[in-house]
Amino acid sequence: MSDEQQIRDLVATWISATRAGDMAKVLTLMTDDVVFLVAGQQPFGKEVFAAAAKAQASDAPMPTIDGRSQVQEVQIAGEFAYVWTKLDVTVTPPGGGKTVKRAGYTLSVLRKDDGQWRIARDANLLVPVKD
Amino acid sequence: MSDEQQIRDLVATWISATRAGDMAKVLTLMTDDVVFLVAGQQPFGKEVFAAAAKAQASDAPMPTIDGRSQVQEVQIAGEFAYVWTKLDVTVTPPGGGKTVKRAGYTLSVLRKDDGQWRIARDANLLVPVKD
Repeated sequence: MSDEQQIRDLVATWISATRAGDMAKVLTLMTDDVVFLVAGQQPFGKEVFAAAAKAQASDAPMPTIDGRSQVQEVQIAGEFAYVWTKLDVTVTPPGGGKTVKRAGYTLSVLRKDDGQWRIARDANLLVPVKD
Repeated sequence: MSDEQQIRDLVATWISATRAGDMAKVLTLMTDDVVFLVAGQQPFGKEVFAAAAKAQASDAPMPTIDGRSQVQEVQIAGEFAYVWTKLDVTVTPPGGGKTVKRAGYTLSVLRKDDGQWRIARDANLLVPVKD
């Protein structure tokens, strides 16, 4: 499988694992030193996802997240790559609260570790959208 | 000069040329196929900066932009690199309107063309901040 196809599969797996609520799987898709950049927040790392996975394992109520990702471009340079996507996400709080929709673009830098591409740096530009 | 130093200089030059209102210089710091990603907007390219440079050449009133950039990390992989920065920007409209402050992070992918590093893909996560 080509590097580009592996990266496209990674993006798809991220969405499907998130939809399935499989945070343990999502954790395997990022490097240990990953940095997530989101507007209006301080940069954060893998520990946020690890905490979600731990909460999930304890059967705590979790939001339901669904999404649709359209890869706009993939470029590979040795052990690094980047991808940018158009992304739509819906988040429904546990207990059936109001679903929030967010849409926009992402720019991610990936690194190949042990033969597997993982997200290393990620900028998420999604904003809330009306129904 | 090392690739890393060239990239740090590029970030500094972007800020100083913007502060000086030298849009023609800023244009030389990006690839022809550059893509800028900003929350709540469609992706845009070099034509937006080219239009600003053209307006400037015609002596049209331009906003005054000042900024301060702190490089958080630079990584190089062959002809590609990435950099993320912490950025503060102030924009003052022509005619002395109210200055708007924005702050946040950027993630940029750079490409080396003709021996010079240029910004190729850029995610800007800045949000308005109070004084």
